Amino acid sequence: MSTPGHLASGLWRHPRNRTSQYIDIEYWTDLARILEAGKFHGLFIADVLGHYGVYRGAGNIDAALPGAAQFPNTDPFLPITAMAAVTKKLSFGVTASTTYENPFLLARRFATLDHLTKGRIAWNVVTSHLESAATNVGLETQVPHDERYKMADEYLIATYKLWEGAWRDDAVIKDDKQYTVPGRVRYVNPGKYFKTAGPLTTEPSIQRTPFIFQAGASSSGKAFATKHAECMFLIGMDPKTVRKTVEDVRKQAVEQGRNPNTIKTIARINIIVDDTDEKAHDKYQEYLSYADLEGSLTLFGGWTGTDLSTINDDEDLKFTGPGAIQSMVSSCSATVPGTENVKWRKARVARELAIGGPHPKAIGSPYHYQVGLPELRARGVFWDDYSASTTRENYQGDGRGPRLRDDHPGSKYRWRAD
Amino acid sequence: MSTPGHLASGLWRHPRNRTSQYIDIEYWTDLARILEAGKFHGLFIADVLGHYGVYRGAGNIDAALPGAAQFPNTDPFLPITAMAAVTKKLSFGVTASTTYENPFLLARRFATLDHLTKGRIAWNVVTSHLESAATNVGLETQVPHDERYKMADEYLIATYKLWEGAWRDDAVIKDDKQYTVPGRVRYVNPGKYFKTAGPLTTEPSIQRTPFIFQAGASSSGKAFATKHAECMFLIGMDPKTVRKTVEDVRKQAVEQGRNPNTIKTIARINIIVDDTDEKAHDKYQEYLSYADLEGSLTLFGGWTGTDLSTINDDEDLKFTGPGAIQSMVSSCSATVPGTENVKWRKARVARELAIGGPHPKAIGSPYHYQVGLPELRARGVFWDDYSASTTRENYQGDGRGPRLRDDHPGSKYRWRAD
Repeated sequence: MSTPGHLASGLWRHPRNRTSQYIDIEYWTDLARILEAGKFHGLFIADVLGHYGVYRGAGNIDAALPGAAQFPNTDPFLPITAMAAVTKKLSFGVTASTTYENPFLLARRFATLDHLTKGRIAWNVVTSHLESAATNVGLETQVPHDERYKMADEYLIATYKLWEGAWRDDAVIKDDKQYTVPGRVRYVNPGKYFKTAGPLTTEPSIQRTPFIFQAGASSSGKAFATKHAECMFLIGMDPKTVRKTVEDVRKQAVEQGRNPNTIKTIARINIIVDDTDEKAHDKYQEYLSYADLEGSLTLFGGWTGTDLSTINDDEDLKFTGPGAIQSMVSSCSATVPGTENVKWRKARVARELAIGGPHPKAIGSPYHYQVGLPELRARGVFWDDYSASTTRENYQGDGRGPRLRDDHPGSKYRWRAD
Repeated sequence: MSTPGHLASGLWRHPRNRTSQYIDIEYWTDLARILEAGKFHGLFIADVLGHYGVYRGAGNIDAALPGAAQFPNTDPFLPITAMAAVTKKLSFGVTASTTYENPFLLARRFATLDHLTKGRIAWNVVTSHLESAATNVGLETQVPHDERYKMADEYLIATYKLWEGAWRDDAVIKDDKQYTVPGRVRYVNPGKYFKTAGPLTTEPSIQRTPFIFQAGASSSGKAFATKHAECMFLIGMDPKTVRKTVEDVRKQAVEQGRNPNTIKTIARINIIVDDTDEKAHDKYQEYLSYADLEGSLTLFGGWTGTDLSTINDDEDLKFTGPGAIQSMVSSCSATVPGTENVKWRKARVARELAIGGPHPKAIGSPYHYQVGLPELRARGVFWDDYSASTTRENYQGDGRGPRLRDDHPGSKYRWRAD
């Protein structure tokens, strides 16, 4: 996230931490160069459109401020072209909300980025969950969760039509007479009352539809993701649970008529590595000494809707809400020895989430955990180099080009030359 | 404009023309480097959110396509950071519509760009005039002209509050404890039903409010511009008329309580220069040989609402509409010898607008017309170098810093440290 405190409030104060330089363009271009040198698939930028506003009372702004808990933040679209200019293969995932962005304007923005990055762009589709985002964009309150996913489904269909269906594949010829051939660009949602008549003003880009990321975990979220996603983020869990989730995802994908192998999965993990296990654990403790625990509780409040400022310090917490909260919090400590039997009180929640948020931690040497890139490469479980230049090709790895796969619901809107 | 055919349809086919590379990032970074080497104040990107759709019948897409008459086009915000990364002083003016963009999302985008460019960003405020833009963003039809300007006025006040009033000037301190000090960030439009509650999620940038460009020419447009603009584009006219317009602007500005000298004016001019006058005129004729005249008439249709496809080739045109149309068209030929007495028929309209659109042309050697930058510099009428690093400082040239001037209506929303 383009903020000093994404999942580690207060860490911007660490001497080696550069996140408070996020407002400088050099921060982004340096980061992109480092990631491409390490052959990372992509750089993904999360986003929120407001402040967390749950902890210390509804609407509270202040709790996030000292640690910079995802506030302040800036627009994730704008550093992309500066990074694209200094890289060739690294992909860029950008978060944008189907609840608050206009579909035409967003489709145009992604098409522009797909051109300027030469096909290296992914869209992390979110429906947004902060009350403050709703009041920022002018709504009285949030659209209910399941309705947001229904909106998102219609929204994606509308944007597929703009990207895949408005320009025939052979519309742009740039010969000695014509840039675009008349008759090969059309309205895609001709109904007077529908949301975006088109045609998209932007000519077809390499991928047309950006590669689609999604992280839906609720029941409506999963139904949406298994229909539209090409890559899913799975929230922090242990390997056994991840396996079950992946199997469920593939099963649901098949039920939706998709090829289950065209949905890639990313299990999030927070890695702290050093030469020895001991050094790595010391590093973790050192990081913790910079953590802003109020910031942790602010983020917990926004994610769960639970304001822990109303809970006493010595109260044992019982997570009776959605299972995801229990799972989110308990998974954080799975790999930190010595914490298994500590009681879940407010201080522990704050501390477990402080470095890396609600994701399992892998802390240790690269020889103990499989967490060092050179070590992973030596073991043959991580590629030596990018296999292609576009996001879709590098993530799918199936040699089938930069366009949507045929099983994807967006592909049926494609306007072929033949 | 980020398009192959902004004000010269068909010219993308000229061997030295690079506009069809507008979808490549190198096109933009090369352009920015050239402009900064020449000490140009800024690069300004116009925009439209649809196709012209008047010429050859309401809703027509095809007429624009061969010449690429402002179609296709891409989002003007996205190449900015790539250009900012290769320059230090050049300013970037970006067009965005108050009718179609959400004020919170737009304010955040400009604040982000002001950070990433280190204060080199300007907003060209437009209310948009294409029917196709309305149907692209989901409206049934356009908001009427004068109402659009009323909306724009409220819109700007809302964004001033986000930029100037949400974060106290000393809110961000980044000391060993606090990134931002609690109590120094606030809601700015607390009414439940108003359009953007804030606070802006983005910390204060160098200029806070981007430098404001405007080109309003109608009566409601001028009232808006003389209230909000810091720099006005004046549409193509002869020097005498420009002088009168500038005097009117300054008079209206005073009536609105502003210092008339804080509104800068730019008289648009289309320059074709070569070693001798004869060579320059030959160059113009060569350019004309690449022009797509259907594209010219497409743009004329969109600007005026008049579909010249319904007019016979030998019909003498009488411009009985708003004075601006007459002025727009006739001004184009003011400096082209031999065209004064040619009748205004369809072919002449198309030809006069074909190279550079509705702006007066200066065609000749730099010694005849004051049109070559080295010659202008030799005469002491153009600066030798940038006077500062931010847009507002370079345009105002008054040594009074990067923030809004005190006479500007946005300055009263400023939340000062004292």
